[in-house]
Amino acid sequence: MLLASGAQAQSDPLPSWNDGAAKQAIITFVSDTTTQGGPKFVPPAERIATFDQDGTLWVEQPMYSQVMYILESVPRLVKAKPELAKVAPFSTVLEILKGDHAAIAKLTLPDLEKLAFATLTGMSVDTFNAEVKKWLAEAKDSRWKKPYTELTYLPMQEVLKYLRDNGYKTWIVTGGGQDFVRQYAEQVYGVPPEQVVGSATGTTYSYGKDGKPFLTKEPKLLLDNNNAGKAEGIHLMIGRRPTMAVGNSTGDQQMLEYTRAGDGARLSMLVLHDDATREYAYGPAQGLPATKVGTFTQALYDQAQKQGWTVISMKNDWKKIFSFE
Amino acid sequence: MLLASGAQAQSDPLPSWNDGAAKQAIITFVSDTTTQGGPKFVPPAERIATFDQDGTLWVEQPMYSQVMYILESVPRLVKAKPELAKVAPFSTVLEILKGDHAAIAKLTLPDLEKLAFATLTGMSVDTFNAEVKKWLAEAKDSRWKKPYTELTYLPMQEVLKYLRDNGYKTWIVTGGGQDFVRQYAEQVYGVPPEQVVGSATGTTYSYGKDGKPFLTKEPKLLLDNNNAGKAEGIHLMIGRRPTMAVGNSTGDQQMLEYTRAGDGARLSMLVLHDDATREYAYGPAQGLPATKVGTFTQALYDQAQKQGWTVISMKNDWKKIFSFE
Repeated sequence: MLLASGAQAQSDPLPSWNDGAAKQAIITFVSDTTTQGGPKFVPPAERIATFDQDGTLWVEQPMYSQVMYILESVPRLVKAKPELAKVAPFSTVLEILKGDHAAIAKLTLPDLEKLAFATLTGMSVDTFNAEVKKWLAEAKDSRWKKPYTELTYLPMQEVLKYLRDNGYKTWIVTGGGQDFVRQYAEQVYGVPPEQVVGSATGTTYSYGKDGKPFLTKEPKLLLDNNNAGKAEGIHLMIGRRPTMAVGNSTGDQQMLEYTRAGDGARLSMLVLHDDATREYAYGPAQGLPATKVGTFTQALYDQAQKQGWTVISMKNDWKKIFSFE
Repeated sequence: MLLASGAQAQSDPLPSWNDGAAKQAIITFVSDTTTQGGPKFVPPAERIATFDQDGTLWVEQPMYSQVMYILESVPRLVKAKPELAKVAPFSTVLEILKGDHAAIAKLTLPDLEKLAFATLTGMSVDTFNAEVKKWLAEAKDSRWKKPYTELTYLPMQEVLKYLRDNGYKTWIVTGGGQDFVRQYAEQVYGVPPEQVVGSATGTTYSYGKDGKPFLTKEPKLLLDNNNAGKAEGIHLMIGRRPTMAVGNSTGDQQMLEYTRAGDGARLSMLVLHDDATREYAYGPAQGLPATKVGTFTQALYDQAQKQGWTVISMKNDWKKIFSFE
């Protein structure tokens, strides 16, 4: 009996999922697309699965981790250029970091863009990578007091592994910074840098004093990997239409449409954050409250129903959300 | 004896290469970087090898195949828009195609750009892909009267396979069009679309009359993947510095520098076209004649010597150049 139940558990590739339509959709899709000779078989080279990152693979509330990185990088910036301490939006960020959380409301979108260019560009790629790695090792989420890299969803980690075990290449397609996400994607998700597509600034090639070439991150947006930009970014970086795609917000709409519109078996999925107890509940689909980040609207929910995308309810479909639970 | 010599042949991963410094450099590099516990070991995830395409993996004389595609697409364009038949540079191209080869000298770089945008953009990605595939199946090289896709260098095909057999991911990093090269790279070299980095125009996402989304190729250059653009393109698309890189012209200089400047074992190689009998001899390194395409200058040759890149002599290092020989 014990042995049999052990074998049973081992044979379930998605043990953190409750039985239900979402789990079944994933298993049916993988089985269909990998059954040689079956009508929905997909050759291994074409098995491309794309995942949004914030809110799909890990927690995005109360603020995207990359925005936290931008804000928490301001003191380093001010140390190098003290004159910034009295200039908005840098001065506003210093107030926020001192504990004046209400001051965050003062930051406009152009402010955030200014802060992003100031903290994410202007240095060599190697310097940026080292700074992000250092921050990731030290920074903690405000609710769980854990490194952001531990706040990934266990059920999604299982899906990534299950897909790879079945010959799928798994990609992250994020509205966040490509270079930023590349600093942890391999360690956290087993997704190598070349399989991370994100918003990207350009770089320029030049030579150091030692004659060695290096790349500098420039404050020029090359790819805005959100909304239609996700489908365009997928074409640029992957060159094939995904077989499967998972997202959680209106920024993922076009990626999910584009994926689902392909021939043969295609699976598009949306993660609905409806678990206020174990994670967060926000939407405003299904009457959930709106938040600053993550816009899963009722219109997106309706489109999912109409176009045959699968909605994943965190509350009902996920037995366990985090590995540390 | 026969069995022993058979085993010997089988164990040589590069049978089309003559014994010499170039062949030895490749074998030593692969052996060093894959010897677990050795001082030059490279983890599998970091085994990235990048190859230029025209002149490195296949013939680029007398004209890049993609330029031939652009020229030979003009009649189709004129059929759709007859008014173009009397307008330069379209009229010039029609003269060239009728046999007036001297007229090719009339085409300026801005002409070629105009022709490129007219033939490579303005249609859906699917339409473009189908047109390129049709052309590739029909077009023939002027000297060997064979499809371009058969004019690949057998010794380089062996290197690609040898690297992959040793855990390397092989990439094409071309100044040519990314979408163009993706149409044959998988079949011809075993390099999937997502491992082709090339010059790229942007796309835009929209909906057809049937409501289905599609991507249109726009006449806007997003990546100029030549010279410094190759190192920048590698960062954008791969996100890691290559361990090995191979090129054949000044357009590859920065890719080779950037690769060689990395820590640990790095191999940068240049193909020198010095075989006028079996292929072409042009340079002008080593006193070879200059041509319109492929600029392997003496300065590049000198840089290779100085920075420890390996020069491959087609004449001396390659036992066999084409599989059909």
